Amino acid sequence: MRFSGRANDELRNIEVIPNYLEHAEGSCLISFGNTKVLCAVTLEDKVPIFLKGSGKGWITAEYALLPRSTSVRTDRESIKGKQSGRTHEIQRLIGRSLRASIDLELLGERQIKVDCDVIQADGGTRTTSICGACIALGLAIKKMKLKRNPFQHLIAGISCGIVDGEIMMDLDFLEDSQAEVDANFVMLETGELVEIQATGEKNVFNDKQLMEMLSCARKGISAIIEIQKKILLG
Amino acid sequence: MRFSGRANDELRNIEVIPNYLEHAEGSCLISFGNTKVLCAVTLEDKVPIFLKGSGKGWITAEYALLPRSTSVRTDRESIKGKQSGRTHEIQRLIGRSLRASIDLELLGERQIKVDCDVIQADGGTRTTSICGACIALGLAIKKMKLKRNPFQHLIAGISCGIVDGEIMMDLDFLEDSQAEVDANFVMLETGELVEIQATGEKNVFNDKQLMEMLSCARKGISAIIEIQKKILLG
Amino acid sequence: MRFSGRANDELRNIEVIPNYLEHAEGSCLISFGNTKVLCAVTLEDKVPIFLKGSGKGWITAEYALLPRSTSVRTDRESIKGKQSGRTHEIQRLIGRSLRASIDLELLGERQIKVDCDVIQADGGTRTTSICGACIALGLAIKKMKLKRNPFQHLIAGISCGIVDGEIMMDLDFLEDSQAEVDANFVMLETGELVEIQATGEKNVFNDKQLMEMLSCARKGISAIIEIQKKILLG
Amino acid sequence: MRFSGRANDELRNIEVIPNYLEHAEGSCLISFGNTKVLCAVTLEDKVPIFLKGSGKGWITAEYALLPRSTSVRTDRESIKGKQSGRTHEIQRLIGRSLRASIDLELLGERQIKVDCDVIQADGGTRTTSICGACIALGLAIKKMKLKRNPFQHLIAGISCGIVDGEIMMDLDFLEDSQAEVDANFVMLETGELVEIQATGEKNVFNDKQLMEMLSCARKGISAIIEIQKKILLG
Amino acid sequence: MRFSGRANDELRNIEVIPNYLEHAEGSCLISFGNTKVLCAVTLEDKVPIFLKGSGKGWITAEYALLPRSTSVRTDRESIKGKQSGRTHEIQRLIGRSLRASIDLELLGERQIKVDCDVIQADGGTRTTSICGACIALGLAIKKMKLKRNPFQHLIAGISCGIVDGEIMMDLDFLEDSQAEVDANFVMLETGELVEIQATGEKNVFNDKQLMEMLSCARKGISAIIEIQKKILLG
Amino acid sequence: MRFSGRANDELRNIEVIPNYLEHAEGSCLISFGNTKVLCAVTLEDKVPIFLKGSGKGWITAEYALLPRSTSVRTDRESIKGKQSGRTHEIQRLIGRSLRASIDLELLGERQIKVDCDVIQADGGTRTTSICGACIALGLAIKKMKLKRNPFQHLIAGISCGIVDGEIMMDLDFLEDSQAEVDANFVMLETGELVEIQATGEKNVFNDKQLMEMLSCARKGISAIIEIQKKILLG
Repeated sequence: MRFSGRANDELRNIEVIPNYLEHAEGSCLISFGNTKVLCAVTLEDKVPIFLKGSGKGWITAEYALLPRSTSVRTDRESIKGKQSGRTHEIQRLIGRSLRASIDLELLGERQIKVDCDVIQADGGTRTTSICGACIALGLAIKKMKLKRNPFQHLIAGISCGIVDGEIMMDLDFLEDSQAEVDANFVMLETGELVEIQATGEKNVFNDKQLMEMLSCARKGISAIIEIQKKILLG
Repeated sequence: MRFSGRANDELRNIEVIPNYLEHAEGSCLISFGNTKVLCAVTLEDKVPIFLKGSGKGWITAEYALLPRSTSVRTDRESIKGKQSGRTHEIQRLIGRSLRASIDLELLGERQIKVDCDVIQADGGTRTTSICGACIALGLAIKKMKLKRNPFQHLIAGISCGIVDGEIMMDLDFLEDSQAEVDANFVMLETGELVEIQATGEKNVFNDKQLMEMLSCARKGISAIIEIQKKILLG
Repeated sequence: MRFSGRANDELRNIEVIPNYLEHAEGSCLISFGNTKVLCAVTLEDKVPIFLKGSGKGWITAEYALLPRSTSVRTDRESIKGKQSGRTHEIQRLIGRSLRASIDLELLGERQIKVDCDVIQADGGTRTTSICGACIALGLAIKKMKLKRNPFQHLIAGISCGIVDGEIMMDLDFLEDSQAEVDANFVMLETGELVEIQATGEKNVFNDKQLMEMLSCARKGISAIIEIQKKILLG
Repeated sequence: MRFSGRANDELRNIEVIPNYLEHAEGSCLISFGNTKVLCAVTLEDKVPIFLKGSGKGWITAEYALLPRSTSVRTDRESIKGKQSGRTHEIQRLIGRSLRASIDLELLGERQIKVDCDVIQADGGTRTTSICGACIALGLAIKKMKLKRNPFQHLIAGISCGIVDGEIMMDLDFLEDSQAEVDANFVMLETGELVEIQATGEKNVFNDKQLMEMLSCARKGISAIIEIQKKILLG
Repeated sequence: MRFSGRANDELRNIEVIPNYLEHAEGSCLISFGNTKVLCAVTLEDKVPIFLKGSGKGWITAEYALLPRSTSVRTDRESIKGKQSGRTHEIQRLIGRSLRASIDLELLGERQIKVDCDVIQADGGTRTTSICGACIALGLAIKKMKLKRNPFQHLIAGISCGIVDGEIMMDLDFLEDSQAEVDANFVMLETGELVEIQATGEKNVFNDKQLMEMLSCARKGISAIIEIQKKILLG
Repeated sequence: MRFSGRANDELRNIEVIPNYLEHAEGSCLISFGNTKVLCAVTLEDKVPIFLKGSGKGWITAEYALLPRSTSVRTDRESIKGKQSGRTHEIQRLIGRSLRASIDLELLGERQIKVDCDVIQADGGTRTTSICGACIALGLAIKKMKLKRNPFQHLIAGISCGIVDGEIMMDLDFLEDSQAEVDANFVMLETGELVEIQATGEKNVFNDKQLMEMLSCARKGISAIIEIQKKILLG
């Protein structure tokens, strides 16, 4: 049994404080158990050079751990003078995922930046960021009153892993550090896949296990999307 | 009259959530009106090179604005590859101030790092950081159960300024950007001065105005220290 | 039909020049069609700090594009002063993959660094790097005559994608830039999975398509591993 | 008594070589005792982005220690790849101070850069820089023959401190390193205050001591301004 | 006698694979014995700021060692965050030399970048780079079919040194590390000098020795230029 | 005729202020006409890693332009975050040259750092640095009273160039920017060569011109060494 008493396919408690920030176009403070991420959306009237004159917009994400979000203090990347490989990898995943939820042509020549700052880390910060970013994006879109709504699909992500041979959903830090296989799934509200990143950290995995993780993830993502709907539509 | 309706020598509403973080040795989320800073204390069993073998400890502080703490998004210093001059100036002020509240000999060869991350900025982030850091420090000291308590004095800071010729306390962002003179005062609970930084941003000032700001600041700091006492001793 | 005339599940022509470099412990120049990567193995008698005293070793990888490996010249990362997010993401993937082929306990407190420098890029540089790195690793292990052989499994990777609704293997640059879905699979010679990274670049995908790409990839990887065997055992 | 034999409110010997450099629009080599700073003014026909189109100009300062200005060699910031926090703090102080002496509207859309390079450091380098920068600025303004003179006020700074309980002016390095309280004052020729930075390095201070330091500083600044006048008007 | 059996004034075996790269405007893989350099030419339709509007073009070079080009692995400059002094020195030499072979006015407002990436290092990488860059340049010029040919002169470089009192040409790494004097000569096909860099690494040298090295170098350069001619004209 | 009225083989006026700095082990402010360089020597009781345990010492040099040493202000390298290629090239030349004047075995496991900071630049800053560094080194050696004197030879450098077809010595900035060929020579007091760097900036040169420049340089260096002797021995 899991230390937390959760069933293997049970999500942690999810809480969202929408519009947590005064200044951002959209924002929320989202927590999955002890993992807590502040997501903030900025709309800018310019696009990266490679899109100038294309009529299309862009979404990108940035991700950071606050120094004491972690058990052992994490040094500031501003002092080290560069972002780590892990940070790059995560913020590229978040950005790619969000691009699947937005119609960049409808957005027009504008850029959306989503900042995901981890206030507290207890496993699953990248998927929590995606789930929160989607809500912040929805809130921002409402506020911006664009003529054409570029926000096409709710999107959510969840981690699954194999711990002691068992497939588990929404791993906390302790489970994550013991996992033989660690996977992150991102899907649209339609159940279609946007991104899979599955890694045999201490072991390999087979097709059957992949399918089981996928099915487990789909169940979790479906529950998360219900929460997103309540906040954005309710 | 001030836009907020406050009297010239009236503080904004102060709220503190002590022990906001799971992992930090001590922490709080402190707000002065819309300014909101997350303060977190880390104790490390090593000191900077210049103190090795001295038997003395050290306190230092780091400060950062989250990207959407500000009205216009502030670029991440980790991406620019270095901390700005403003960041350096502020975190040096916070560190110097905290060193006045701790007996570095009693601390022994250990280092305390205080992280002040601005969640939302509406003027006075550096003095809010000092006030919150003092609370986080007090909470950490309690938790650490050191043989000898190195925490000697409560410490607090507040801004005063001259706006349209009138001396005002605890300026919000709007007032700060219109101020002719901008000053920050840091004092111990004894009322003694630890640091003054006073700048004629758009105008000069005379001795009388300095004394009036000082007296106004002392009043505010005294009220803040009462709040600190309630949290730490209550 | 594919521009190159290949069948959808057909690999490009693979060529390997083993021991291409004089100085490296093991090396090869590997090409998949026009994609050409120089892989070089270095063995160092030290490990990263987090493994000191653990008795275990480490493998890590570094990846770079030579400036004119690409159609439009790519600026040097040494002049920009940092590695790009893409570089970080790729070299982390290569390193993680290789760790599945080596028994880090048998390696002992030593570190293997694998350099993958792309001489010419025409799609699939990250999976070509993994395939070449495995060969360079095998050649280095032979040369080093370690008491205990830490090299446990041949490993290979291949890209699959969905282009115009059709599943294709081993995409070249042109196909890659038109792909709706882009996936990279890494497997051991046993057929077990080590890593999946699948991304809906311009579209989403469903479970059936994932399974088809997986099956297609397994076919390609099996052929690549036969080539590796001939070089290393032949 | 002070080691140098000076009275507590006595300045060190001040020497100025005006127009020390051939190329600069204005320059001087200024010394306060053994502290020696080279100040150079550059006028540029462009302003920072935030002032474009405003019709207003800008003054900014840069400060550096030459490697052997100090007793123990100071590493070059160009090799460390960034300016230190101390450097940032000091050059921001110099820049802010000089902005009080210039009417930025009269300057028009031009930028003045003042370089303060410390040839030899023996305490008080930041206030020596301000005093020398004012002279270099005055010399540059003369040379430039602008239609409207933007140079409004002579400005000077001096350090005061509390050493062994006694208030002293113009501390040298030895005194500075023993000081309990260290303060820097910047004033216009009118005696009005532009900036105060007072820090309890090893102790706190009270209002009376602040007033005494202020009065002591005013005496020193008045003497410095006489020297400035002789050079610029004589 | 030399370890390799070569006569003191004998070049190593020179091999050139012209047009080694698909994407570059011109390229070659050139080897002098075990030293192997990949040279690639890029033509860009823009010039550095200092030439804008001048009607003149520019050539510049960049140089790097691949990590395992060397016997002991060389750390990547992209990870160290900057190019070393040695790299700067070498690429400036290559750039200056190439500017002697091109008429920058005939080139027009265009910039040529030549990348010299050392695949394997065994002494003489900078002169090998110059010799290969000249060939890559010639191949690029052919391909570009410019109205006016800016390529005026073949150019080549060679190292000479004094080892154990004897003057030797085209030193390999072992000889280079034992040399008392190390010199690099760059000449046009006319025999005229473009650049000399001569350094007494472990000893000084006199005019007679300089003349002998110069004459020895001229012989080698003349042979190299014959090879260049065969490739470019043959 | 030269603009300055000098003969083609005539040095500029040379002035030296020995022991210009209080703190450095040895120092001088040296000027060749309007070129003015501050040279400072530091002795450190540690050597670079590659010499640890070798019993041998090391000399290295650092070079920088002060911002307004130049006619158009040169941006600080500390702000750009790195040293330029030109700076690297020059400080490597100075360091190599000085290593010819010192017996590194007699120096023992110690490192000498020579800082050459250009106060004013008017051509020839690198050779002026070498000449001044030699004097500062001699003064430092005297002061350090080492058992065995590692300082073996006086050393000096001078520039020669070809301007309008005429060979000239000790070029000022104007001459340097018009020179077809620019060469720097470094020699010991014995007249033996330590380093030659000769570049055809706008033209090539032949053996005869090289010999003439060499002979002209030897004449100048001989005069400079007389000046060095007077300062160090007088």
